Amino acid sequence: MAGPGPVAPLALSLGEPAGVGPEIVAAARDALKASGPAFAVVGDAALLRRQGGPVQAVADLSEAAAVFPRALPVLDRPLPAPVTPGRPDPANAAAVADWIEEAVSLAVSGAASGVVTAPIAKAPLYAAGFRFPGHTEFLAELTADVPFAGTRGPVMMLTAKDLRAALVTIHEPLSAVPARVKADRVEHVARVVHEALRRDFGIAAPRLALAALNPHAGEGGAMGREEIEVLGPAAAALRAGGVDITDPLPADTMFHDEARRAYDAAICLYHDQALIPVKTLDFWGGVNVTLGLPVVRTSPDHGTGFDIAGKGMARADSLIAAVKLAGEMAAARAAAPSA
Amino acid sequence: MAGPGPVAPLALSLGEPAGVGPEIVAAARDALKASGPAFAVVGDAALLRRQGGPVQAVADLSEAAAVFPRALPVLDRPLPAPVTPGRPDPANAAAVADWIEEAVSLAVSGAASGVVTAPIAKAPLYAAGFRFPGHTEFLAELTADVPFAGTRGPVMMLTAKDLRAALVTIHEPLSAVPARVKADRVEHVARVVHEALRRDFGIAAPRLALAALNPHAGEGGAMGREEIEVLGPAAAALRAGGVDITDPLPADTMFHDEARRAYDAAICLYHDQALIPVKTLDFWGGVNVTLGLPVVRTSPDHGTGFDIAGKGMARADSLIAAVKLAGEMAAARAAAPSA
Repeated sequence: MAGPGPVAPLALSLGEPAGVGPEIVAAARDALKASGPAFAVVGDAALLRRQGGPVQAVADLSEAAAVFPRALPVLDRPLPAPVTPGRPDPANAAAVADWIEEAVSLAVSGAASGVVTAPIAKAPLYAAGFRFPGHTEFLAELTADVPFAGTRGPVMMLTAKDLRAALVTIHEPLSAVPARVKADRVEHVARVVHEALRRDFGIAAPRLALAALNPHAGEGGAMGREEIEVLGPAAAALRAGGVDITDPLPADTMFHDEARRAYDAAICLYHDQALIPVKTLDFWGGVNVTLGLPVVRTSPDHGTGFDIAGKGMARADSLIAAVKLAGEMAAARAAAPSA
Repeated sequence: MAGPGPVAPLALSLGEPAGVGPEIVAAARDALKASGPAFAVVGDAALLRRQGGPVQAVADLSEAAAVFPRALPVLDRPLPAPVTPGRPDPANAAAVADWIEEAVSLAVSGAASGVVTAPIAKAPLYAAGFRFPGHTEFLAELTADVPFAGTRGPVMMLTAKDLRAALVTIHEPLSAVPARVKADRVEHVARVVHEALRRDFGIAAPRLALAALNPHAGEGGAMGREEIEVLGPAAAALRAGGVDITDPLPADTMFHDEARRAYDAAICLYHDQALIPVKTLDFWGGVNVTLGLPVVRTSPDHGTGFDIAGKGMARADSLIAAVKLAGEMAAARAAAPSA
């Protein structure tokens, strides 16, 4: 939808240089060079040249769309230390964080239509003083003062084929989940998703499906009372506020082909409730989307792959899907009445 | 594998007469009449005749295999009260329980090679004094005194396509799950599954995959410690005892096509961890298997379907898969060295 054209190119932060990022970024450019959407990398051009494909340093994102069909456009920000695949070096961590920050700035200014982030490794970033749990929180902080008409997230949503699954809790021990599934948190996540589906996905009347916490949605209280005490009231409050959402549904029967046709996004309560169906349906092509930010942001749903980095084994499916989705979201946001 | 031949027919208890049971039983006979495996119903012949297909009352299970290709064989046990689809009547509940008991007796005596149970409704059974949480516990009680060389369950396992997923906890509120996932329980379930895969599924060297409780398998303790304190030690103890099982694996990456090829059964810790992938992969054809009983037992993984009963809408996929699997298990058990 958003190939080279009126929408600005995407800014792609190269992420952990010792991971699979450089090779899958090169592969994604190759897969998308004819169709778009166009992107420019914020990262180290010499490292990208080592991947074998054509690379062209650009001074400005406005050059990227014209370059993209024949070479990978890069805003060249060289790393201070040499890169060995599979061996992250904290000496490069500040540069990795700077790449993300610059990509976000480009999107905030409008020079880029959105941000795609290649995977980062937390350990070297923490060793260098980075203080965020991950990309998502860092992006929220970087855009905290940027004007935004919508309900602010961040909310994490995964996509796989026709499934979109947003998360109420993310990286919590399972034992902590029930207490953290509060009505106000469920309502906030659902509102962010509802607005994002309208603004960024072009869905005029989004339909949300709320997952239950307990087996059989608690079976009337016999197997847990959160559906009665927390989730049902949250769904009712959301509907009263104009958000089309179901009462809590048994999670096991929400994700098969026919069930998915009944909703545009599932509101899931914990990590594996969303990630099991996402990765079962589409292990290679899942995308991680951050909703409720002033900028469009997607990323692959996998990590740095240190064990396979540099060996030519990494699959770019997820990054390609992330670039395509960011392009579609940027086009929808540009066309949205509120934009 | 187990069509009419040396293996005895299966005994199928008709289950709740006001549900979809009668129509899917008739449809399953029609689907399997040429290929087998043959089964005989323990239930009400008049009710089955109302489904439209040929029905033949038999006096003994030894007649069933010869009858099966041309008519549905029934050990006729008439109900005391008339049946209205969608409206269960507690007056018939005792007969429903008797049908299950007779089907189990036939399998214990060897007249039947296994038991397939059509869905029951708990409410009318409870109203009539039934005191078991469900089929599984009732069958365990009915066979408690029957000699059995294996480790006794019952353990619930679901199958869908090439996925087998066994459960450590079943109908528990999610908040109760972490405390109930104990090492001894995990080890017991895994042992029952290991033995059943050898005895009933003909897998000489079964490979088990143990699901983690927490996201990313706890990520070294950062997101929960059950993997370190409970699941890892349980897996090590199992391996020391000759059971081939993995350390706890991130549950989200266990169930895609490629991952499933690495194991013969997944040991799952809670209901939706197993049921989400099972029903996402194969919503219509899943089978519920009870392992660790002196008799083979399968059932469809759906309920009585009161809302659609008698309307010709019910799909028999799951019951057909349950009959086929029971036939395969019965043949494997008959051929097993320990049988």
